[in-house]
Amino acid sequence: MAMKVLLKKVTITAERLLRDELIEMIKRHGATGWTVTAVEGEGSRGNRTSDFEGRNSQIDTIVSKETASAIMEEVAEKYFADWAIITYAVDVEVLRGEKYLGGN
Amino acid sequence: MAMKVLLKKVTITAERLLRDELIEMIKRHGATGWTVTAVEGEGSRGNRTSDFEGRNSQIDTIVSKETASAIMEEVAEKYFADWAIITYAVDVEVLRGEKYLGGN
Amino acid sequence: MAMKVLLKKVTITAERLLRDELIEMIKRHGATGWTVTAVEGEGSRGNRTSDFEGRNSQIDTIVSKETASAIMEEVAEKYFADWAIITYAVDVEVLRGEKYLGGN
Repeated sequence: MAMKVLLKKVTITAERLLRDELIEMIKRHGATGWTVTAVEGEGSRGNRTSDFEGRNSQIDTIVSKETASAIMEEVAEKYFADWAIITYAVDVEVLRGEKYLGGN
Repeated sequence: MAMKVLLKKVTITAERLLRDELIEMIKRHGATGWTVTAVEGEGSRGNRTSDFEGRNSQIDTIVSKETASAIMEEVAEKYFADWAIITYAVDVEVLRGEKYLGGN
Repeated sequence: MAMKVLLKKVTITAERLLRDELIEMIKRHGATGWTVTAVEGEGSRGNRTSDFEGRNSQIDTIVSKETASAIMEEVAEKYFADWAIITYAVDVEVLRGEKYLGGN
């Protein structure tokens, strides 16, 4: 039996035009894989509500706990003030965790 | 560093025609944002199986624990008997939890 | 109030051509429902990176803890060596857990 490892799945949902820049960002943090899903969304930005609707990109990546925190911090610092973007992390159990962890 | 807050992500997957009514329902419970993903699905309704296939809508919203329970209860009470619908909640870590919590 | 039950949501993301065979596999393990989402992805296979890109299928199914482990083990044993495929499990809270558990 392969051993179970606990990692984090970080999800970032944002306007589609941020997609490539967000993927570059998570790669820079050491993410070795991700999926992108086209979603529709509506959400809040600061005090306003309903200020984005339409096609957004949801990016999911499985990383270590430390990398998850670093990615979420960067999203918050760089994007929360000016963009309708959300990010969250969930615990995930994986088999053969080395598949998901880069060399750094 | 922004503080991490533990909230719930509630997912509802149902036939597409329920989509707008379900979004109205989660808004009524105080949800301030959501994403909708087009998915294909097959599942059970009561004792029958495989009774829905094709384009369904998956609605995700991040809310407080109490709101998550209230939403799931309403889905169960109103829809479980007659519709092929599922709902579940997962723990999510977010930064700046106030983004996700409405004024009510 | 309906009682909350803790189950597992298993996610498998793989090239689209594996989709039907993976659905047959999870059915064989007793899964009674699933959703399939079209996603784009990039990930690692063994030591190589970036070896899959394009349209992939993400399959989600809610099952018991034991079934989740059995499905993930089979994915690892049969597919990890030769395919760009990932699988992970998360804890989910559901109402009326019997909806998700087959007769076996």
